Amino acid sequence: MADAHAPERPLANGQTRIDFQTEPSRYRHWKLQIDGDVATLLLDVDEKGALFEGYELKLNSYDLGVDIELADAIERLRFEHPQVRVVVLRSAKPRVFCAGANIRMLAGASHAHKVNFCKFTNETRNGLEDLSAHSGLQTICAINGTAAGGGYELALAADHIMLVDDGSSAVSLPELPLLAVLPGTGGLTRVSDKRKVRRDHADFFCTTEEGVKGKRAVEWRLVDEVVPGSKFEQAVTARAQEFAAKSQRGEAAPGIRLMPLARTFSADGIAYDLVSVEFDRAGRVATITLRGPSAPPPASADAMQALGAEFWPLKLARELDDAILNIRLNEFDVAAIVFKSSGGPDDVMAYEHFLDDNKDHWLSREIRHFWKRVLKRVDLTSRSLVTLIEPGSCFAGTLAELAFASDRSYMFLGQREGDNKPPATLMLAAANFGPYPMANGLTRLGSRFLADATVLERAKAAQGVTLDAERAQELGLVTFALDDIDWDDEVRVFLEERASFSPDALTGLEANLRFAGPETMESKIFARLTAWQNWIFQRPNAVGEDGALRRYGTGQKPVFDTRRV
Amino acid sequence: MADAHAPERPLANGQTRIDFQTEPSRYRHWKLQIDGDVATLLLDVDEKGALFEGYELKLNSYDLGVDIELADAIERLRFEHPQVRVVVLRSAKPRVFCAGANIRMLAGASHAHKVNFCKFTNETRNGLEDLSAHSGLQTICAINGTAAGGGYELALAADHIMLVDDGSSAVSLPELPLLAVLPGTGGLTRVSDKRKVRRDHADFFCTTEEGVKGKRAVEWRLVDEVVPGSKFEQAVTARAQEFAAKSQRGEAAPGIRLMPLARTFSADGIAYDLVSVEFDRAGRVATITLRGPSAPPPASADAMQALGAEFWPLKLARELDDAILNIRLNEFDVAAIVFKSSGGPDDVMAYEHFLDDNKDHWLSREIRHFWKRVLKRVDLTSRSLVTLIEPGSCFAGTLAELAFASDRSYMFLGQREGDNKPPATLMLAAANFGPYPMANGLTRLGSRFLADATVLERAKAAQGVTLDAERAQELGLVTFALDDIDWDDEVRVFLEERASFSPDALTGLEANLRFAGPETMESKIFARLTAWQNWIFQRPNAVGEDGALRRYGTGQKPVFDTRRV
Repeated sequence: MADAHAPERPLANGQTRIDFQTEPSRYRHWKLQIDGDVATLLLDVDEKGALFEGYELKLNSYDLGVDIELADAIERLRFEHPQVRVVVLRSAKPRVFCAGANIRMLAGASHAHKVNFCKFTNETRNGLEDLSAHSGLQTICAINGTAAGGGYELALAADHIMLVDDGSSAVSLPELPLLAVLPGTGGLTRVSDKRKVRRDHADFFCTTEEGVKGKRAVEWRLVDEVVPGSKFEQAVTARAQEFAAKSQRGEAAPGIRLMPLARTFSADGIAYDLVSVEFDRAGRVATITLRGPSAPPPASADAMQALGAEFWPLKLARELDDAILNIRLNEFDVAAIVFKSSGGPDDVMAYEHFLDDNKDHWLSREIRHFWKRVLKRVDLTSRSLVTLIEPGSCFAGTLAELAFASDRSYMFLGQREGDNKPPATLMLAAANFGPYPMANGLTRLGSRFLADATVLERAKAAQGVTLDAERAQELGLVTFALDDIDWDDEVRVFLEERASFSPDALTGLEANLRFAGPETMESKIFARLTAWQNWIFQRPNAVGEDGALRRYGTGQKPVFDTRRV
Repeated sequence: MADAHAPERPLANGQTRIDFQTEPSRYRHWKLQIDGDVATLLLDVDEKGALFEGYELKLNSYDLGVDIELADAIERLRFEHPQVRVVVLRSAKPRVFCAGANIRMLAGASHAHKVNFCKFTNETRNGLEDLSAHSGLQTICAINGTAAGGGYELALAADHIMLVDDGSSAVSLPELPLLAVLPGTGGLTRVSDKRKVRRDHADFFCTTEEGVKGKRAVEWRLVDEVVPGSKFEQAVTARAQEFAAKSQRGEAAPGIRLMPLARTFSADGIAYDLVSVEFDRAGRVATITLRGPSAPPPASADAMQALGAEFWPLKLARELDDAILNIRLNEFDVAAIVFKSSGGPDDVMAYEHFLDDNKDHWLSREIRHFWKRVLKRVDLTSRSLVTLIEPGSCFAGTLAELAFASDRSYMFLGQREGDNKPPATLMLAAANFGPYPMANGLTRLGSRFLADATVLERAKAAQGVTLDAERAQELGLVTFALDDIDWDDEVRVFLEERASFSPDALTGLEANLRFAGPETMESKIFARLTAWQNWIFQRPNAVGEDGALRRYGTGQKPVFDTRRV
């Protein structure tokens, strides 16, 4: 195995962890320009700005560091620039839009990094599509040169793809012929399911290094239009105006600032304002504790807007998102994530009602969408997830979704000896029945109760009711209800058992059991496409010493095991 | 990599290839008993009857050889026993139903064999479900002891699962805790999507070596009923009668005999009566040529029945199926399969009309279903597929589906110099618009023309029309139309290019591009589940020297790389 037991590659500049927090003034690779209701995201990758040591980011190729900036810019468009109706994705470099994921980075990355890098970039592209589908912000990709591999996959996430018609500019997915891997950042799925390219055309396109350009690119549905170079700027401007006119977005209100998160990293954890992460390194467990609100909701939507990033639901979601990403990409040895909470369920419910009452306000909407994406990130996190619903916890509404996103939940029955906290409760809200669909298009409870719609109806009828452990179990909302006598042992045994299993087998198991029922284009990207890509990322034909990924650029041809599997 | 460049393991008894042809008198592991409208499939594995050298089939565990018999028995139920309404799957061994796929077999099998073994066993289980869904033959699984892993997965393919309630008999999926692999023969998908077991229950069940028994097995939807040992026989009989009464099946007519296929294997090919396979070993290409009918269709359904297995559409399908399976499991070095045909398109169309005219006859129905399954097998065959539509070919109706199942098709434009055959034609029939859905639930043309329903309508309107290459290309039915000047070079370059690419990358690419659009439970088994399983089948935690699959039964614990991916 290329990376079996190999250490992770060193980060550049002596850094010790990958940081997901950034802001426009610190971007090295993207520029976010706002001009009225049109934003431009300009890709201008700094070759020397690689995340890891050992490669340069030539030709607007990217690594995770580049994509962290893109993800950040998209969040800022949502929250800081509610007036923007259209975003144009462009390159600042001549004759190249983007050469895709950096090959030297991929060739030298551990398997765990490769897989989690692709997962994050997929989430970012899904986020762009969500921005269009649910926040009305239209996206245009204006390709002024080569859009190869991940470069074209980024374009595929846009609503409208424009390609300059200059006899050489082309879109291509050369992964297979050049590198013996797949266009795995959604490429194959978006070609077949979003662009609906005919399968034989797709077969030709994906096996042709140089890609497709000009009229054929339009005829085969690979791009929406080709425009002569002399008219390209004018056409991009016109298209941006046209899409802006069609957009449902465009708030007169100013945005809110996404302030940097207050965080303290220590050897054994991360302390945020509302979230804490504790690592039990021997046990390979990370415990994430979420704190309920310490104040009632603001008096009005204006007051919410004035609170901005300090508004409890938004702050909590941002901190949780950062915590999850930290574990995913910096803490590969964590086998299980335990979710806990502390606070008052009624206080949490007050915020649920506040968000529901203001559901037409742009900021409430964006906060719900943000939570939706964070919860999807949880679903896709390849660690065993367990929620412990204990006395003093506040798993209500949105927070209860964490229990439903978990592989199992344990609820404390009665009181703990020597602890006068009242027994644990669970509480359902409207948030559990609509605004947070999973990638498969169902709510977590809908997915949980696929077998019997009446069970889902019973849960719906229990909204707002304080559910003790017995009632929560009757309703099928928790896996096990345990009293003080059994709690510690059962939870300990579960976590020890989880740490004893093969991490890979758990990854595969959880990737299957978490996604019962229908598949969507989004879920297909993480299932059919990603799972096959991960398989290929293990195969000597790609990652072996003589494989295509390792030999690319060396002048030596790869040597393939010719057996078909 | 455990098996990189490793030779395939030797077959038992000095055999040189895996043979998919068998018949009840030769079965070593199954007994097919018919009693009126109830059939019993009795599993009684011969420990000494393993397909490969080096392991014994203890505890009713199975290898591909056992499953080839099961697949054969199911076909015989369809064609030879049309009066049967119910089949009961049982074990002839006390206290064990089936221990699943043989672990020593798996541990020593090449990756290519493991993957193709699982694919075949999945197809067999899907065939059981198709038998129930489309031929009305109800299936009951009566579990008299342990049904572990693949044993329980076989049960999951049945309509009704009965478990003896004796305090020890249990169903289990112990793959993860014991072997660090997945229940990959549909197990996870059927637990979540067919049985609709709640995800946290499924998580518990799939991580618990000993499985679940008794009342909990029913409550968790893992089985349909548990019955005390003393009443088990009686209950099985009663349930069989009850399901027989509900069945739509039950022909008074006698069945037809599925006679052994006439085949001649040579170093460079396989010659059947209607199908020939030629291997170009240097080019890594297998060419499968299908011959059209040499006589008009029979005068009546009775005459068809009298022809039995000699009836052209059935004989052709059986030979094609056998050819495909031979290539899949005996010819791993084949990169591409070329489909050709010879004969008269009008002669083929005469059979299309005959089958349509007799579509309510049980045998016509079974033949259409058989073709449906063979074509699905083609879709799932991980070799590049190309159809060459040349002068003298007869790609009409059902045979045209091979062109639509292919990754690309090339159609000859005009005549070949020095050849007086008339130009190639393609002809569509009702068969291209309904009876042969892919695993994703769509017809191949529906999947091909996802982008635009009007294009599908245009194709529908062209049924029965003789389409030359230009017209076929206009309708989007072929990839490229080439004349005599370009044909040989273009086809040669395509096949050489295909052989030059990474076989693994092609496997992943084709598994994505062939399945645009929706997913079904069936397609999820081959996508989400199988792709993850194949990934795990590459991971040292499972297949490495210290991995769980290798160490099982040695008394040594596996050693895991603890990093989560």
